[in-house]
Amino acid sequence: MPRFRLTVEYDGAPFVGWQRQDNGPSVQQALEDAVFGFCGERVLVYGAGRTDTGVHALGQVAHLDLQREATAKTLREALNFHLRPKPVAVIDAAPTAPDFHARFSATARVYRYRILNRPAPPVLDHGRVWWIPRPLDVTAMVEAGCRLVGRHDFTTFRSIACGADDPVKTLSNLILESVGEEIRIEAMARSFLHNQVRIMVGTLSLVGLGRWSPDDITKALDARDRTRGGPTAPPQGLYLLQVRY
Amino acid sequence: MPRFRLTVEYDGAPFVGWQRQDNGPSVQQALEDAVFGFCGERVLVYGAGRTDTGVHALGQVAHLDLQREATAKTLREALNFHLRPKPVAVIDAAPTAPDFHARFSATARVYRYRILNRPAPPVLDHGRVWWIPRPLDVTAMVEAGCRLVGRHDFTTFRSIACGADDPVKTLSNLILESVGEEIRIEAMARSFLHNQVRIMVGTLSLVGLGRWSPDDITKALDARDRTRGGPTAPPQGLYLLQVRY
Repeated sequence: MPRFRLTVEYDGAPFVGWQRQDNGPSVQQALEDAVFGFCGERVLVYGAGRTDTGVHALGQVAHLDLQREATAKTLREALNFHLRPKPVAVIDAAPTAPDFHARFSATARVYRYRILNRPAPPVLDHGRVWWIPRPLDVTAMVEAGCRLVGRHDFTTFRSIACGADDPVKTLSNLILESVGEEIRIEAMARSFLHNQVRIMVGTLSLVGLGRWSPDDITKALDARDRTRGGPTAPPQGLYLLQVRY
Repeated sequence: MPRFRLTVEYDGAPFVGWQRQDNGPSVQQALEDAVFGFCGERVLVYGAGRTDTGVHALGQVAHLDLQREATAKTLREALNFHLRPKPVAVIDAAPTAPDFHARFSATARVYRYRILNRPAPPVLDHGRVWWIPRPLDVTAMVEAGCRLVGRHDFTTFRSIACGADDPVKTLSNLILESVGEEIRIEAMARSFLHNQVRIMVGTLSLVGLGRWSPDDITKALDARDRTRGGPTAPPQGLYLLQVRY
């Protein structure tokens, strides 16, 4: 029974997130329904990252097993046909080893967060960015972001609903840069805690606005207390960019 | 009576184009209504480029005269407030000379056209690109594009509805490049004929698909006959990027 690896792009807006849930449409369900539409098989589609309600993906990775013989190209085209008009597309499909697991084989996840930092509201990027009209001090944000890189107890930067056993994670990389009117933050780790990227971005925005110093970030991290962190940045600026294996 | 220059971004999808018309909402009307909402004045807003139905702008320029005293910042913020929830925003407002005219003072217009060239349909860029799933030969398109640069009779590349007296225009620049899965075409001229950029892009796509050679572009140009040109590329890939003065 061949296993396939999919690379998936989606607009998070209409979904309750990646994972199948009772309270609304999920990306996982959309893909599983598309597989059923294609070949009548009820399969499980496993994703690398369980993105939240409203969070987008440019490079989510998933795997599934098919009984039916199909080329990767046929599978990709059939899934894209059956996914319409939902805002989900299979960018790539490829046969993979039977022990490949989208979630457990992953060695790193890369997320991108986009802030639109200009006085005028977003138009063409509406629903794709977090709009902060007041000018942000990018240099201070870069310095503050560096305080988060490395192996830390990220309790301050995880949702109180986070179910992970261990709040210690290694943030391999955090790149913060200005691109025109946009501030882009890319964060890489083997895995993240629930809402970790959004809380890091929300807290860094306080530094950008001059309300916090970079030292306050260190103090917040050391406090290991969610109430000492900043707000959770909104989901529409967040993208699962890449999963590495 | 102070004159203001506005830089405007809009999503072309819900509009019949820049210019006020009887058959639907226009960007010009949206701006004029926002001015009325702000100060009760019924003004005319003049734009640099009369973009068609569905065509976007990142840097449309417009001017207007106000009786009411207002700072540029107040005007920008008030217009953006009254424009909501329409997908139009004033990115910049500045006082300008009383003889500045958005349309007639312009020395060049720059348009960008975005083609998404990958097998999977657009998701996050739905409505923002022209999707061509078959691989395009970018090198051949670059060579063909060069044939269009310069001063030519562009009759082949204008809508039969084009009302311009003179079909001779100077295309100052045409830059075609691959950016990831996207092919971007930027065209600069003092002014363009009706649908010129979209017909140039539609015709270049035939070269990219291998149906035409670069020489066929020269022959089409020399024919001075719209029926000898390629199709008109769809509006959702086109952006008025910049107006120069």
